[in-house]
Parts: sequence; structure tokens; C-alpha cells
Amino acid sequence: MQQVAELQSLFKTYLDENQFHQKPEGLYEPINYILSLGGKRIRPVLLLMGCNLFNDNIAQALPASFAIEIFHNFSLLHDDIMDEAPLRRGKPTVHIKYNQNTGILSGDVMLVYAYEFFLQLDDKLKIPTIIKTFNKVAIEVCEGQQYDMDFETRNDVTIDEYIKMIELKTSVLIAGGLKIGAIIGGSSEEDANHLYEFGRNIGIAFQLQDDILDTFGDPEKFGKKVGGDIVQNKKTFLVLKALELGNDEQCAKLSALMSIDSEDENVKIEAVKSIFNELQIREAAEQLMESYLELAFDHLSAVNVVEEKKEVLIKLSNELMGREV
Amino acid sequence: MQQVAELQSLFKTYLDENQFHQKPEGLYEPINYILSLGGKRIRPVLLLMGCNLFNDNIAQALPASFAIEIFHNFSLLHDDIMDEAPLRRGKPTVHIKYNQNTGILSGDVMLVYAYEFFLQLDDKLKIPTIIKTFNKVAIEVCEGQQYDMDFETRNDVTIDEYIKMIELKTSVLIAGGLKIGAIIGGSSEEDANHLYEFGRNIGIAFQLQDDILDTFGDPEKFGKKVGGDIVQNKKTFLVLKALELGNDEQCAKLSALMSIDSEDENVKIEAVKSIFNELQIREAAEQLMESYLELAFDHLSAVNVVEEKKEVLIKLSNELMGREV
Repeated sequence: MQQVAELQSLFKTYLDENQFHQKPEGLYEPINYILSLGGKRIRPVLLLMGCNLFNDNIAQALPASFAIEIFHNFSLLHDDIMDEAPLRRGKPTVHIKYNQNTGILSGDVMLVYAYEFFLQLDDKLKIPTIIKTFNKVAIEVCEGQQYDMDFETRNDVTIDEYIKMIELKTSVLIAGGLKIGAIIGGSSEEDANHLYEFGRNIGIAFQLQDDILDTFGDPEKFGKKVGGDIVQNKKTFLVLKALELGNDEQCAKLSALMSIDSEDENVKIEAVKSIFNELQIREAAEQLMESYLELAFDHLSAVNVVEEKKEVLIKLSNELMGREV
Repeated sequence: MQQVAELQSLFKTYLDENQFHQKPEGLYEPINYILSLGGKRIRPVLLLMGCNLFNDNIAQALPASFAIEIFHNFSLLHDDIMDEAPLRRGKPTVHIKYNQNTGILSGDVMLVYAYEFFLQLDDKLKIPTIIKTFNKVAIEVCEGQQYDMDFETRNDVTIDEYIKMIELKTSVLIAGGLKIGAIIGGSSEEDANHLYEFGRNIGIAFQLQDDILDTFGDPEKFGKKVGGDIVQNKKTFLVLKALELGNDEQCAKLSALMSIDSEDENVKIEAVKSIFNELQIREAAEQLMESYLELAFDHLSAVNVVEEKKEVLIKLSNELMGREV
């Protein structure tokens, strides 16, 4: 099995060789820009791992891994416009660096190019199945973003709805990439579905971990400002769980805090955290996260390949969860 | 051969049966809205005709015809956001009726659904070729929109560049739909390419006709306000040709007129038309349009099916060009 760093390097080379040099520049330059902003390339690397579980020929999965990365960046690009986000990975977002129309249109053509790279698969017979798998994911990602926007103006979001939203918005893409990799590698349908479920559950665990770290993380290690979700009044799992467990007074106080723009951010963050601590919300979130991790690894165990081939997937998952092993 | 009205009716039924009732409503309702705004459904009808030239089983081409109509409406939806257009077919545009974020996201998911309907083709072996053909078109439509936006701030647009822009922005979709229909119907590659060229050339002729009618049309028959392109300072073929043929004085006057927002629209329209008349621009535009029509019909003649099967295509083309025959 190829190791994480090797797969990242393989993908990086493919990405560099497939820059967009077409005309008009105004359409294609923003695509190279957003793709150059980096990141750990988790989704394409997981797709390559999905393939590598069943096949030593990883190169055949590179176009599909690029398709997944293009789609992921398309969704970031359009989401940044919708969220009016000024920065992405510390750099100006596309609609800020260029303009909004460029952001919309370059995003649109990226979505088309995702399909274009899926078509490059040598085994043409697999293309309809792969595009079918991808379409389901792409539709769900859009649905997840819509739910996320809908939730901003709703005061009755349930925990189940929140979990469903993060599943759609973030974890199905991880799951779909793994499944597509498996299909390319020649897995059975059953194994491909187990890998999908591994990805779906681990994706939810990642997001719950992200919610926890955003509030309780070590400011030295956490890339963004700790407490950002609280400042932005985001209805994360932590808030929803506190509203479920809290007494009338705690709920009223939390609702009040999470519906205003506080003058002193740190005071607000500490006040919200204090309610979370009273209700042991961090522990509840960690418990739920663990249950999704467990489900994820159960599905990985069920995949019918020798255990040592799965080690790299387990290692990457633990790294992403911030666990040294 | 099925007649235009029969194909329109067939398509209308399919569209009605395939409304989007999925959740979340905020994502899908705008899709039903824009698809319900109507129009003559030229693109899907042409796709069905492309199939019908080679095959009596038109039903097999219905999902692809819907895919083309979904894509067309996706591009209208996003273009309306970019152009800040308040109305589409006399009704509020999606970003006005709902909001901009809804417009972006509903458009995105429409693009994915276009692929979803292409996948419904019974003959799975043809899917990669059809999606390849569609991707080329979809990419070119985005490129055309980018050129169109680029041209707004450029003062050195050539006629060749303008023709290329309208080819990309509007005619390749007509061409691609016809070609996809032909492929579904079982045509030879050569015939499919002739149909593509028929569509590409007739699409350019349609747009030139549209440019002419926007300035010289009969206000009673023309759906929009005559002179709208002039009021909006659009660099249509008429303007570019006048700048090519005019003397220094005429060019200076036209450039001045087309760079300001006139206080009295009708005065501006008449002043620009007067320069067009001095230079016989209408005649030049009609001549160019005729040359594209001729090219289009040459390619249709070359398609290897009995002539009577082509009659419905010729009839529809003439109707769209405003010619009774």
C-alpha cells in the first residue's frame, strides 16, 4: 500500500500537470488560483486509497481523484460567495480577489470539468456507475448547503437534522470519493458500500471534532480563532445539545447569547462555554463522535481485503482526528 | 416524422411528469419555477428531431432533451444573476423572487441534474460519448458568457471575436443538442457532425437575426422593447460593423453615443439607427446572416437520410427566422 505522503505527492504532480491554461483567462485563472491554495488533499487521497485497497494501479484513479478535488473546490468557491467569506486558507476568496460574477462562472465551469475528468477513466464501462455515484453526492452536497442556510433563520433545528446536514454537506463527498476509488480498483459492490459507510461515518466524526475544537481547541494548534462558531452564532451540535439538556434558565441565557452580536467577543465566548461546561457538552459531543468513529471502523473491518492494506486508512483517519498512534 | 407541435407536447408532458418534489423545498422550488416560465422549448425539440431523423423511437431521447432544457435554464438563471436582470419572460428572475444565494445553489444542482438525466439513457454504452459531447458544449457556453462579460469593458472587440462569442454562448448548445439526439437515434458519426454544424451555423444566424430585430424589428411583433441593445450600449454585430465601415466622424459619433447613458432613450436610438442607415448596416447584417443560413442548410443537405425527414427541421428553422413558407 502506498503511504499518505506518497499519494499526496502523486496527486500534487497530477494537479500541477493539469493546470487550466485555456482561454479566456478570466474564466480559468481563478480555477488555478483556488486549486493552488492547497490543503491536505484529503478527498483525492482517500479516493486513491479506496482504489489501492483493491488494485496496485493507482494511476488509473488519478483523473477521478482530480475530479473530486475540483468538485470540492467548486463547492468552496460558491459557498464562499453565499457566505460572503473574505478569506479561504488565509488568502482572499475568489469573489474578493476577482469579482462575484467570475466566482459564479468559474465555479460553474469547474463543475463541468469534474465530469470531464471522470470521463478519462480507461474502463469506459464503469463511467455510468461512477457518474451515478458522483451525482448522488453532488446533489446531496447542494442539499446540505441549502439546509445549512435554512438553519440560520430557524430556531427549531433538531440534533438529528443537524447531523443530517453535516452528513450531506461534508461527509458524503468523502464517502463518495472512497466508493468511486473502490469501483475503479475493481472492488465488489458490497466492499464499495462498506467503504462508503466508513467515509460517511468518519466524515460526521471529523465534523463533530471540528465543532469541539472550534470551541475547546488549543489556540496554539487550532488553525482558526477558537470560539469562531460562537461569535458567528452557529447552531453547532454543542449549542443544540445544550438546548436539549439545559434547564429553562440555561436555555434562555444561551438563546439570548447566540442571537446577538456581542460587543466583547471573549466575554460572549466564555459565557457560552460556561453553560457548555455546566451541561458537560464537550463530553456529550466526544461520546457521539466516538460512536461515529466506531461505526466507521466497523465498516472498514468488514471490507474484504487483508488487514494490513487498511492500515494506511486507519493511520490517516487518526491523524485527521488529531490522534497520534 | 413527428411535427413541431407534437414534439413540443411530448416534451411538455415529460417535463410535467419530472417536476422536482425533493426536499429541501428552498433548493428545488426555484427549479420548478424557472422551468415553468415556458418558452418554445426549441433546444429539447431540436434534440428530439435529431433523434427522429434516424429513429422512430423518440421516447428514448426524452431524458436527454430534458437534460438540455435543464442546462439551458441553469445558464439563464446564473446569467440573470451576473447581469442583474430583474425579469425573465416577463416574470421576476429567480434571484429577485427568492434571493441570490438560492439562485446560485439551485442553479448548481440543476447542472448536476442535467447529467443525471443523461444517465437515464437505456443504451449505457452511449453515455460516455453523449456526456463528452455535452461537456464540450457546457464548457463553451461558460466561455461564451465570460467573453460576453469581458467585451463590456473592451473597446477593441473584432467582428470575428463577436461571432465566436455568440457561437459559444448560444449556438453550440443548439448544435450539441441536435448531435446528442442524432447519437441516441443511431446516426453515423459523420451525420451527427453535419447536424452539429447545421445547428452551429443556424444558431449564429438566429443571433444575428435577433441583433437585427432588436434595432430594426416591428415593435408590434418584437417581444422586447425595440432599441434595447442600443440603450444598453451592447456591442452587437451592428455596432461593430458600423465601426468597421464608418469614417472617422461616424465612428467618433457612434462611440460617443454607445458609451453613455442617454437621458432621452428614443433620441439615442434614432441617432444610432441613423448612422446604421448611412452605412447600410442592416443589409450587411442580413447578408452575413444569410451566409450562415446557407452554410447551415448545406450541412443539413449532407445528412444521409431521405429529404422528407428533414422538412420539419427546415420548417422550424424558417419559423424561428420569422419566415413563413
